[in-house]
Amino acid sequence: MAEQTYLRDIADHVDQEITVRGWLYNRRDSGRLQFLLVRDGTGMVQAVAFQREVPPEVWEAASQVTQESSVIATGTVRADDRAPGGYELGLSDFRIVQLAEEYPIALKSHGVDFLMENRHLWLRAPSQWAVLRVRAATIRAIRDWLDDHGFLLVDTPILTPAACEGTTTLFETEYFGETAYLSQSGQLYNEATAAAFGRTYCFGPTFRAEKSKTRRHLIEFWMVEPEMAYADLDECMRVEEEMVSYVVQSVLERCAPELEILERDTGKLAQITPPFPRITYDEALGILGEAGEPLPWGEDFGAPHETILGNRFDKPVFVHRYPSQCKAFYMAPDENDARLSLSVDMIAPDGYGELIGGGQRLHDLALLEQRLAEHNLPREAFEWYLDLRRYGSVPHSGFGLGIERTVAWLCDLSHIRQTIAFPRTLGRIYP
Amino acid sequence: MAEQTYLRDIADHVDQEITVRGWLYNRRDSGRLQFLLVRDGTGMVQAVAFQREVPPEVWEAASQVTQESSVIATGTVRADDRAPGGYELGLSDFRIVQLAEEYPIALKSHGVDFLMENRHLWLRAPSQWAVLRVRAATIRAIRDWLDDHGFLLVDTPILTPAACEGTTTLFETEYFGETAYLSQSGQLYNEATAAAFGRTYCFGPTFRAEKSKTRRHLIEFWMVEPEMAYADLDECMRVEEEMVSYVVQSVLERCAPELEILERDTGKLAQITPPFPRITYDEALGILGEAGEPLPWGEDFGAPHETILGNRFDKPVFVHRYPSQCKAFYMAPDENDARLSLSVDMIAPDGYGELIGGGQRLHDLALLEQRLAEHNLPREAFEWYLDLRRYGSVPHSGFGLGIERTVAWLCDLSHIRQTIAFPRTLGRIYP
Repeated sequence: MAEQTYLRDIADHVDQEITVRGWLYNRRDSGRLQFLLVRDGTGMVQAVAFQREVPPEVWEAASQVTQESSVIATGTVRADDRAPGGYELGLSDFRIVQLAEEYPIALKSHGVDFLMENRHLWLRAPSQWAVLRVRAATIRAIRDWLDDHGFLLVDTPILTPAACEGTTTLFETEYFGETAYLSQSGQLYNEATAAAFGRTYCFGPTFRAEKSKTRRHLIEFWMVEPEMAYADLDECMRVEEEMVSYVVQSVLERCAPELEILERDTGKLAQITPPFPRITYDEALGILGEAGEPLPWGEDFGAPHETILGNRFDKPVFVHRYPSQCKAFYMAPDENDARLSLSVDMIAPDGYGELIGGGQRLHDLALLEQRLAEHNLPREAFEWYLDLRRYGSVPHSGFGLGIERTVAWLCDLSHIRQTIAFPRTLGRIYP
Repeated sequence: MAEQTYLRDIADHVDQEITVRGWLYNRRDSGRLQFLLVRDGTGMVQAVAFQREVPPEVWEAASQVTQESSVIATGTVRADDRAPGGYELGLSDFRIVQLAEEYPIALKSHGVDFLMENRHLWLRAPSQWAVLRVRAATIRAIRDWLDDHGFLLVDTPILTPAACEGTTTLFETEYFGETAYLSQSGQLYNEATAAAFGRTYCFGPTFRAEKSKTRRHLIEFWMVEPEMAYADLDECMRVEEEMVSYVVQSVLERCAPELEILERDTGKLAQITPPFPRITYDEALGILGEAGEPLPWGEDFGAPHETILGNRFDKPVFVHRYPSQCKAFYMAPDENDARLSLSVDMIAPDGYGELIGGGQRLHDLALLEQRLAEHNLPREAFEWYLDLRRYGSVPHSGFGLGIERTVAWLCDLSHIRQTIAFPRTLGRIYP
């Protein structure tokens, strides 16, 4: 095959002849001119065929090509401010690899159920293409930041013998005669790896069999979970705001064209730099009361409360020191107020809800044993976890950041389902 | 807390006082001197306390500290060629954070079952620490290479409605009234994303409920699967050898101390550069026959055959064009010999077996429909996959590289179970 030039590099080839292998996105016919929008997965270009200047078979192919047919286009790159993207391809050759049947997703509006049923094709649309490229850039930025700040990637298991926070929302499967559960979090395992490697993170899919249908929840979603030995709640918040700020600035830098396709207001994102505001749970209750959504002390926030809190600030806000009763069993107590936990959530602005949950973990053996009993958790399954308090226990902290919520925020999407290639929701496991 | 210096940076602090937060790996007592080996997850240093020079409470702590107690050590860094690692810490302060109970993994030999039962602690041992750091470096190198060569990360789903290669070795779970299977491969989904993004990869956990117990298999393992639109079998091999060579050289560069702990012969790895040898399936049969392990034409290789083939070469070897009958339904046929598929496996030297399986995919609609029927696969579940041949089908290729086998090879380990933090094997799902 002739060498392929990717459209992401088109600016390097002005006045040169290149060959693009891709698909027809759209065609416009004006008598003796054909305007063919060709995409190759890395970008899009308008290819132009003049009837007088191309061989008859090229004109014929350009005239009959259908939407999403696979095509090989050869031509000369011209800089042209009027063309979409600033470049145009003056066609000299044009071949159809496979002539597509009538494409189900015409260039008009479709209902979201129809689009999700055709998700394997919908991914080719510019909006979805842009979102998933932002997703990849987000993940890369997170990994780069962690790798460059002394965190070691240590993958934690998906198939686990016990539940981190109870079994009610777990998927289960038979594991050679035993029952195994799909992981909701790698955190407990991270606590073991942090004692071996100092600072670690896991990054993988997690699963919640929740019957709730909201625009902020998926059944299968990806989470990054850093964990740090010898780190307290303050250090945890510092790491979170540094990492999130780096991710936002990195996406702004690398994904300008994608954010433009999505019409994202980037001015707001440009302001996301440390430090982020910090308020206590009690202060948050005050804000909710003022806003006419009072909440009894001790209850966790729901989506409406998170929206009110997030909207009070231009940056993500830390809410820290939740009552122990509304947080997981492994949260460390606050030495200054036994009712409180050293927990912290990061809530996004503009109604995107909780991006991060985390805090300082309990590191005292006797208290952990007591908590397991209070939560009716099966002690045998947690013996290894108790060992971490028997052999070199240290103050340690960590957090989990949800990838899809972060991408929804960065792309300004009203529903989280567009932030993953093949979303798993209450009603959908196809394609 | 006083600022913490990580031992990975100790060379930058010669003649300075630093504070290390870590754990006691080992202690040696010689009357008025205590030699304390302290690890902090990033490295290890020998801390030395002279009874005459430290306050009594420091001497007391140094005398009573037990293996794997958590400790905070402050002292002056001295370059000393006789010390392990080349540096020593002259202690001025030493505190025990938590005095460990008697550590189950003493510094002597233990059986592998015992070590696996205590995997959460065994990870702290230098050999396991080294392997998992090589693993992290391997994964980073793979991601960097792909990201820098135009591949876009697109995560594929774990919960799937149908099986890629039959359901006999799949874990299943109830998905809100339907049956879902845990993914064995993201490949079919990658074919959809390659048509949207050009070159893509997925990277995640995969699951095989196989009852076989071998040193090369895990129940849960990680795989990276790149997929390329407009790429043929030759391009596939070229990408594989470039990527694998980069990974090997990158690990050699970044993990010299870890490979030394593992006593890995790095000379062999230094030779891993493109091109890799290429032999056909038929040529491979010839080699097996010569070696006294003849195999009937049409059968796939087992572990002993892979070992013979791998041992014939200093580099990984490509075996290409297997009979269609021993490969998956989606493999493209060889135009020059209809019995053959455009498949290729990469087999490691020194008995590490198949690192990569891949090849060119079938892109003709009618032939794919025929293959689905021949393999008794449920057509409804594959309608979306058939769509990829209806709307802009192109020649495309891809492959899957198993992370654990690659790490076993790089670290020269006889059993794959040490290459992942919490291995899932036939008999084990704990911890």
